[in-house]
Amino acid sequence: MSAKITADTVREWGRRYSNWGRWGEHDELGALNLITPERILIATALPRLGQVISCGLNFDHKGPQTGVGGRHNPIHLMLATGSDVLAGAQDHIPGGFRYADDSIMMPLQCGTQWDALAHVFYDGKMYNDRDIALITSRGAKKNGIEVVKHGVVGRGILLDIPRHRGELWLDDGFAIGPELLDACAEAEGVSIESGDIVLVRTGMMTRCLAEGSWQGYCGGSAPGLSVHCAGWLYEREVAAICTDTWGIEVIPNETEDCFQPLHMISLRNTGVLFGEIFHMDALAEACAEDLRYAFLFAAPPLPITGAVGSPINPLAIR
Amino acid sequence: MSAKITADTVREWGRRYSNWGRWGEHDELGALNLITPERILIATALPRLGQVISCGLNFDHKGPQTGVGGRHNPIHLMLATGSDVLAGAQDHIPGGFRYADDSIMMPLQCGTQWDALAHVFYDGKMYNDRDIALITSRGAKKNGIEVVKHGVVGRGILLDIPRHRGELWLDDGFAIGPELLDACAEAEGVSIESGDIVLVRTGMMTRCLAEGSWQGYCGGSAPGLSVHCAGWLYEREVAAICTDTWGIEVIPNETEDCFQPLHMISLRNTGVLFGEIFHMDALAEACAEDLRYAFLFAAPPLPITGAVGSPINPLAIR
Amino acid sequence: MSAKITADTVREWGRRYSNWGRWGEHDELGALNLITPERILIATALPRLGQVISCGLNFDHKGPQTGVGGRHNPIHLMLATGSDVLAGAQDHIPGGFRYADDSIMMPLQCGTQWDALAHVFYDGKMYNDRDIALITSRGAKKNGIEVVKHGVVGRGILLDIPRHRGELWLDDGFAIGPELLDACAEAEGVSIESGDIVLVRTGMMTRCLAEGSWQGYCGGSAPGLSVHCAGWLYEREVAAICTDTWGIEVIPNETEDCFQPLHMISLRNTGVLFGEIFHMDALAEACAEDLRYAFLFAAPPLPITGAVGSPINPLAIR
Amino acid sequence: MSAKITADTVREWGRRYSNWGRWGEHDELGALNLITPERILIATALPRLGQVISCGLNFDHKGPQTGVGGRHNPIHLMLATGSDVLAGAQDHIPGGFRYADDSIMMPLQCGTQWDALAHVFYDGKMYNDRDIALITSRGAKKNGIEVVKHGVVGRGILLDIPRHRGELWLDDGFAIGPELLDACAEAEGVSIESGDIVLVRTGMMTRCLAEGSWQGYCGGSAPGLSVHCAGWLYEREVAAICTDTWGIEVIPNETEDCFQPLHMISLRNTGVLFGEIFHMDALAEACAEDLRYAFLFAAPPLPITGAVGSPINPLAIR
Repeated sequence: MSAKITADTVREWGRRYSNWGRWGEHDELGALNLITPERILIATALPRLGQVISCGLNFDHKGPQTGVGGRHNPIHLMLATGSDVLAGAQDHIPGGFRYADDSIMMPLQCGTQWDALAHVFYDGKMYNDRDIALITSRGAKKNGIEVVKHGVVGRGILLDIPRHRGELWLDDGFAIGPELLDACAEAEGVSIESGDIVLVRTGMMTRCLAEGSWQGYCGGSAPGLSVHCAGWLYEREVAAICTDTWGIEVIPNETEDCFQPLHMISLRNTGVLFGEIFHMDALAEACAEDLRYAFLFAAPPLPITGAVGSPINPLAIR
Repeated sequence: MSAKITADTVREWGRRYSNWGRWGEHDELGALNLITPERILIATALPRLGQVISCGLNFDHKGPQTGVGGRHNPIHLMLATGSDVLAGAQDHIPGGFRYADDSIMMPLQCGTQWDALAHVFYDGKMYNDRDIALITSRGAKKNGIEVVKHGVVGRGILLDIPRHRGELWLDDGFAIGPELLDACAEAEGVSIESGDIVLVRTGMMTRCLAEGSWQGYCGGSAPGLSVHCAGWLYEREVAAICTDTWGIEVIPNETEDCFQPLHMISLRNTGVLFGEIFHMDALAEACAEDLRYAFLFAAPPLPITGAVGSPINPLAIR
Repeated sequence: MSAKITADTVREWGRRYSNWGRWGEHDELGALNLITPERILIATALPRLGQVISCGLNFDHKGPQTGVGGRHNPIHLMLATGSDVLAGAQDHIPGGFRYADDSIMMPLQCGTQWDALAHVFYDGKMYNDRDIALITSRGAKKNGIEVVKHGVVGRGILLDIPRHRGELWLDDGFAIGPELLDACAEAEGVSIESGDIVLVRTGMMTRCLAEGSWQGYCGGSAPGLSVHCAGWLYEREVAAICTDTWGIEVIPNETEDCFQPLHMISLRNTGVLFGEIFHMDALAEACAEDLRYAFLFAAPPLPITGAVGSPINPLAIR
Repeated sequence: MSAKITADTVREWGRRYSNWGRWGEHDELGALNLITPERILIATALPRLGQVISCGLNFDHKGPQTGVGGRHNPIHLMLATGSDVLAGAQDHIPGGFRYADDSIMMPLQCGTQWDALAHVFYDGKMYNDRDIALITSRGAKKNGIEVVKHGVVGRGILLDIPRHRGELWLDDGFAIGPELLDACAEAEGVSIESGDIVLVRTGMMTRCLAEGSWQGYCGGSAPGLSVHCAGWLYEREVAAICTDTWGIEVIPNETEDCFQPLHMISLRNTGVLFGEIFHMDALAEACAEDLRYAFLFAAPPLPITGAVGSPINPLAIR
């Protein structure tokens, strides 16, 4: 990490690790193309326990949002309640049948989530050489999350970095480089293969929950992936990368003159799906118990037309 | 179907087909308890093709809602756009990194969805003898959808009724009784087993999409399950029942004096999870092609705390 | 009205009837500048009866919106209810004090409303030569509705066109020209003066309410002001123009090649405030009774920062 | 203030200062009935300057809400923007006519606001002996804010307590008793008359804005009216009482065993309209300049059907 990494380095690495055109000019799936039917069958062959573990954080007012970028925690509102029924509000419905109903208002990336390939960009272009003018108040005409509706299912790998290092959690500002990812994988007895969904645990969420405070979680200093992982993600043909942090990357970023450089390279150019705010503690416990860090992974996004992200409830099936 | 079915019959069948207390007084999962680890492993062993098919209808303004019960189609709004970037709105972010972001306002049951066990009730009680006073403007304190977060994964079975009958779709008002479910299953070469997730296709959505109109889809006349399926769901130990309609049941209901009687019995008493507004056409095509109607099914709800339903993107993995 | 009016005519008339620069390059109030303190005192001297009449249509799900432009009727949701209290939900609050609370989601122009001067534009410019790049997902940096917060108070004049013509309502497509406005004013015994707020009643809302249908109200054929009123609004120095229709103007517009030409000229160039979806029936009855068509008018917008419109409850004080 | 005030005292004072039935059993306006036509004409005769001053705080993300009671600051979202136009998103509209449009999601009492008479209650009853079961998820069937749509217009009086006391603002916990209200009025040369709208300035908002922090503003310690003002409001026949604080009343309340006792008595029993989060600084400056503390006041609520409050932009016309 000797040479200074600048916005120009990021552009250079973007070109170097680009998948633009690899699956045709009409492609909107990016690295998810790497999850071939063969890879899916390898994944479905993994479960031994019949155990399903969610990596979703509950969506409610206790969520991590503190206002950064106009994002807020979910606002859950009732359209009909049991208390209404007790007050006689549904007495027009025959035969005693009564119901409750509800609604939600939420930023699509306020909690556990996929970034769509339309989420980040620079120099006027997003994944696969598309113009960002395609993303207006009407939504994203291309690279929206709804193109991912027949997914994301594949082989998931948990890289539990703090456990590997014998720590409860990584310090803010701790950069996870490709060597550490490899060392952790090796220690866990797994190797990253084409089309894998890689979950990197930093322990940051563990710490926030333990401390009862999300202060700094959204956009503040954080442990996370080094920009040097860009090549690793490209070469290992990772389909999706997920963390228990707000934004995958180590903050402060290693680049002074550009924000979230790994997004710039790996999401925009390599076309890797980014999953954020994953709650990996239960999964980490389970993997540590039987020392099996590979599992069948399923995390379907809501196919919201033109959306640049989606809340999800990612499942590890073991 | 000779004897008249009344609200009192519904109460009687509710008692007869009740799972209250079966998994303890604290249980909130209902029939999902039937999806044991063994059943999950049977399900994960099913895929042969490495194919993933969504049964989700896209969430957008073209959705089926027409205002019934105060439900509306999703309202997708942008917090940041590519067009903004072109207009210079993000020029304060260093290094050219730019982004789009978005938000949604939607009733949780406006599209493809799970009903939580807190969704319907009568006589002041919901599943497992819980008081409906637990469901207020603050949400459901019990039986909310978040308790299902480590699911729903299991063996899915598609019962494609119109194809079985050689029709494009069933007529409105067509009641699907248990005999027809069995005959269809037999013809498809599958049998319903404990813990299965059963997807019953009526073709109603196919027709609405073909006709370009959702008129009557929400709450109007519809093909669907007969109230006589209550015993079948209970005895076959179905974990979840799903259709391509608004409300599972045939409408007009077979009971003059109570609305949606199967909800009353099977959701409230048997504790079966109800999945509605599933888009099953692609799955139906695929199953018809290789004549395999059983598959690995995964449809995780968003764990929205206290919610009485959740939008989902159900996946069939084949 | 012999010569064909084209988009170029509209541009020409925009230049002819422009107030850009008239109140300085920093002005964001437009024709509201014409409501001088003297004009306000003339207005406050008008009331004789101590009568207050709202021109607001109630904001609820029965409103006029049918989806045009993504607008919907207001969604009113409760945060706390009386029924919740009966169910014990607020029993933690000491001394028996209980409350209800609520929330709203609504397009700002879904009902009775002011258009801000940032609402419409062409050729990249809005009122007072401002770039439309100032209006992004973050709102309007200039010409937003919040600049009008110390208003709108002045002399209101009702021009009740159907009553003047002895009709219940005007036909769809009926164009109200400047001569008719003058004739109506003369018959009512009023004359339009600088800084007046002019309310033109077409009866369209009367008809929709009588027929119980808003079909076509939003964006469909409608009676309304002719584009030839542009000069009249400019020369009479009207501060604000209001109708009981969706969009002030006669539809179909008199211009084949551009939509809503009067907005283009009078809002964008003259800087006139446009008020739409006013419910004028009660006011019309009152004015017809005592034959006084001038009144003190007060319609404060909600000062929503950066908004391009605001819901209002306009009051006539007589 | 020697005897201890308890919840029972509050109930007793509620009976003593009750207007239930005074204007008939069907009345929903409460003390607003005191604003007779005569009082309105007295108010419209007040202006001397032709000056309009808003007492509204802008509605935006910088508002005072910090999450208390599930309230949040307004969420303003765009449906169409100028930047979109620059990106070509509206090129289907002929003739160059383009537009911006927007939407809001906000708790109705998140900023400057009226409480409806359905907002607070105890012992199962709200104003005029109505059952609180009338307030459900569908809104308030009685005493909702829409009944006030032909208002609120009348004589406004500013009681600028900190200026009267030679202070910038009152301390948190400072209780304003009836004697201080009278002394301030006398010093200002005004007397409170039947049907007046009384604006009591505490300076708390001045302090929050000066300090750049709303910490504690919502629900925390605050200067405000003593519960002993209940008799004063009743006897002076005040129509509406407004402050620059979150909740009118001094906090901590003078009653240990019940919250917001003045609401309980004066809103629920006397039927006084409560106006909160008023921004009175500009008005205070103007009144101090010409020593005229009475003015024409107009603050129409949005007539949201069944709402228990409404955002407003209150105007003083001088």
